Amino acid sequence: MIEQQIKTVIRDIPDFPKPGIVFKDITPILQSPGLCESIIDVFIARLQGLQIDGVAGVESRGFLFGLTLATKLGVPFIPVRKAGKLPHTVKQKIYELEYGSATIEIHTDAFKPGDHILIHDDLLATGGTVTAASQLIQEMGGIVSGFSFVVGLSFLNGREKISPISDNITVLANY
Amino acid sequence: MIEQQIKTVIRDIPDFPKPGIVFKDITPILQSPGLCESIIDVFIARLQGLQIDGVAGVESRGFLFGLTLATKLGVPFIPVRKAGKLPHTVKQKIYELEYGSATIEIHTDAFKPGDHILIHDDLLATGGTVTAASQLIQEMGGIVSGFSFVVGLSFLNGREKISPISDNITVLANY
Repeated sequence: MIEQQIKTVIRDIPDFPKPGIVFKDITPILQSPGLCESIIDVFIARLQGLQIDGVAGVESRGFLFGLTLATKLGVPFIPVRKAGKLPHTVKQKIYELEYGSATIEIHTDAFKPGDHILIHDDLLATGGTVTAASQLIQEMGGIVSGFSFVVGLSFLNGREKISPISDNITVLANY
Repeated sequence: MIEQQIKTVIRDIPDFPKPGIVFKDITPILQSPGLCESIIDVFIARLQGLQIDGVAGVESRGFLFGLTLATKLGVPFIPVRKAGKLPHTVKQKIYELEYGSATIEIHTDAFKPGDHILIHDDLLATGGTVTAASQLIQEMGGIVSGFSFVVGLSFLNGREKISPISDNITVLANY
């Protein structure tokens, strides 16, 4: 139901961000307030029973549904940002990309050790960034209680990469 | 009331992002789901009577409350992003910064000509980015119906810069 609604509006962008990649553009979802509301409602329903003390959203597109999700769940939102963006004391994680490396950061006071954290992003591709976010959260004493994504690209095997961290993986629309 | 609640949690970060600047860190707001909910409720109340056909949120922190605001208002959310991030056909605006320049982009199909657009960001500083966003929206045929910010730094005179575009400026906490 929600899967079909999402797939109806998502569009393929060939050769973005580089030749040979077919990018799933989620921005048409944002044009439908009804669909945005349904996405949050379905997330909340599917996450029932999971212990969640905070929702970590990955910059930038994980900020979109991440904050609403946290607010509706009644828990803090934890911004996961690129290096140099968070102004207070941070802990960082450097991780490998296909070419080169990237760094993500979380404020050291963004959650308490022992807190159960849901990691949210708009799209699960190879799972590289959310794996790095998970490791960072674990190094800071947090427990990764699950993952939530609007879209998943199953052919990139992200689910296999992140399931050892937590197999509570919610994906609303799978390709 | 909301102003005091916001000011109680916001913290000053001296010398960020560079020496001499005192940065207002809004991330503690995100740790309070109750305050996040109040912020949205107060925005909705203060925006009553304003024609809004879409909410444009500026990457990254404008994505936080921007999407929730759009969803609650029942209108599309229009992501305003840095160059190269939006995958579909875009229109772009290059604007001057203190040192150098920056580019923002909007999908050409993100709204229709004649639509009344509210521009949202977390913080109003000099107003440079939201002025560029306004000009871009106007060049695309949109009408800027107003601005909403969680925090405003009045000593940087952003209000004076943007009021010729629209004097419907909502700022929840003023410094």
